[in-house]
Amino acid sequence: MPELRKDPVVGRWVIISTERAKRPKDFKFAPEEKHIKPEECPFCPGNENATPKEIFAIRDNSPPDAPGWSLRVIPNKFPALRIEGDLNRRGEGIYDRMNGIGAHEVIIETPDHQLDLADLQDEQFFNLVNTYRLRVLDLKKDPRLRYVMIFKNFGVVAGASLEHSHSQLIATPVIPKRVIEEMDGAKRYYEYRDRCIFCDIIAQETKASKRLVNENNSYIAICPFAPRFPFEIWIIPRTHISNFEDTPDNELKDLANILKDSLLRLKKALNTPPYNFVIHTTPITLKGIEFYHYHLEIIPVLTRIAGFEWGTGFYINPTGPEESATYLKNIM
Amino acid sequence: MPELRKDPVVGRWVIISTERAKRPKDFKFAPEEKHIKPEECPFCPGNENATPKEIFAIRDNSPPDAPGWSLRVIPNKFPALRIEGDLNRRGEGIYDRMNGIGAHEVIIETPDHQLDLADLQDEQFFNLVNTYRLRVLDLKKDPRLRYVMIFKNFGVVAGASLEHSHSQLIATPVIPKRVIEEMDGAKRYYEYRDRCIFCDIIAQETKASKRLVNENNSYIAICPFAPRFPFEIWIIPRTHISNFEDTPDNELKDLANILKDSLLRLKKALNTPPYNFVIHTTPITLKGIEFYHYHLEIIPVLTRIAGFEWGTGFYINPTGPEESATYLKNIM
Repeated sequence: MPELRKDPVVGRWVIISTERAKRPKDFKFAPEEKHIKPEECPFCPGNENATPKEIFAIRDNSPPDAPGWSLRVIPNKFPALRIEGDLNRRGEGIYDRMNGIGAHEVIIETPDHQLDLADLQDEQFFNLVNTYRLRVLDLKKDPRLRYVMIFKNFGVVAGASLEHSHSQLIATPVIPKRVIEEMDGAKRYYEYRDRCIFCDIIAQETKASKRLVNENNSYIAICPFAPRFPFEIWIIPRTHISNFEDTPDNELKDLANILKDSLLRLKKALNTPPYNFVIHTTPITLKGIEFYHYHLEIIPVLTRIAGFEWGTGFYINPTGPEESATYLKNIM
Repeated sequence: MPELRKDPVVGRWVIISTERAKRPKDFKFAPEEKHIKPEECPFCPGNENATPKEIFAIRDNSPPDAPGWSLRVIPNKFPALRIEGDLNRRGEGIYDRMNGIGAHEVIIETPDHQLDLADLQDEQFFNLVNTYRLRVLDLKKDPRLRYVMIFKNFGVVAGASLEHSHSQLIATPVIPKRVIEEMDGAKRYYEYRDRCIFCDIIAQETKASKRLVNENNSYIAICPFAPRFPFEIWIIPRTHISNFEDTPDNELKDLANILKDSLLRLKKALNTPPYNFVIHTTPITLKGIEFYHYHLEIIPVLTRIAGFEWGTGFYINPTGPEESATYLKNIM
């Protein structure tokens, strides 16, 4: 059973992952791209029995855990958190810990081993973001859970352990620290100005347009004013919606389109860079929050985190967002 | 001139580094160990003119910027922040920015191109930590500065761009977010319990001893209860001292010894892993803080930061601190 432990000073939770337990000799310093063949890939059609039983799939008349799907959701075989059991919150002197309860799912985005997410057909891309929404709506029913984090790691240096295109979802029994920070910051702004800060960002960025990468009826894609990384992109819905899972169908289609467009721009500008994207949304226990506005952040992995970043939380970014946005805007 | 920009939601500052400006084609995804020969190394004796003029050095009767030194402090040739100029704090609509004023110095730890910090002689190691202290005391005089961060990046994947052994120092005109978080957390604990949380950690860890790696008269070295990374080590002074620069000589000698010992243990356990260390101390504008206690954190770079960590601030750690500490304790 994984264990959740809280840093007593800053309140950061860490998952001590016994399922993935490693001894010193298990750590390798030279990460290698692992190219495995479709025959050996657990995410490829025909190998469904190499994964835990599927939770959800989009398929035509074929039975579960068999080929015939276009998208498949499975529990992670080596989960960071486990779905069975009780939290059993407890102390150890001044420290706090609890059992590592939660959900850890993998969304296999396509049956095609070679395909990049950026190259998915529009309909399949819509199915993907719609599946994200369906999984959040389902996990919302579990009273032990507080937050559902949807993210994608692409490329070995961005943390992807398998190359077959997939996203992940981790549902946690506590509200993560970064989420609390964002919500607190947005709340302070709201209390001071009676306006949502993300709505204000949309107003300023669409007017100035120098950091705008693309826009459609429902979303804007910008390089944010203070980006941690070169070519960082944020996708923000124009309508004030606090919870991602409350996005209506017509907007979800626009989200799929602008996310695909953003990934294609990064792919073209930076020659298929490793990246992470994360949906930043309101905890599933809250609804209709007026001061917080869900959005999606894409960070290409081009620079390194070192001692200065660890100590300060500052980031040193060698490419300004105006320059990044101009480049990304003109690349298509 | 680099620029400091503040994220309007979470208050995180980033440095947009124009000195290091990069366009898309400048980013390489396969980091390579650059082995350069001593003749070409700007940190080697004889090449002093390849660096900016030295700020401080330990040398025997030789003139500045000439060979004959055992330790040398120079301004970073490509500084993240620049020492000349005014802050010029200003807005851009809802956003905040200021000029990138500060100090960015490099401490060349040894004239020997091949030597690891962990292999430095005891006296030289003391000179190093003493130099850290001297530099903080000097920068404290600049009223534009609020914080001095001392850190080391070892190895390419930990962010070191030159292999010749060196540490760095960055002084910032704002108190970094991570520092505020730590101080706020420690303050909340103090308000609740009337005790310093770090003093309480020392009491619990020396009693339980299962996470203790080593100790001497003035310091303990532990694997913390909720470590972000496998084999993470914290070095904490037994005496309550809030500001690193106030460490007395006799304790500073003990700090040099336990830091060297910790680095040697990591080197032996993990076969010379890349690592970062950072001194976590009180802002230079504050003094004698009863709720905060300086310490040093060492993080071996063995695992990856991916989407989940970016989104949540959670870390997934495959090696528990009790296991890490037992291993490190028994390795020597």
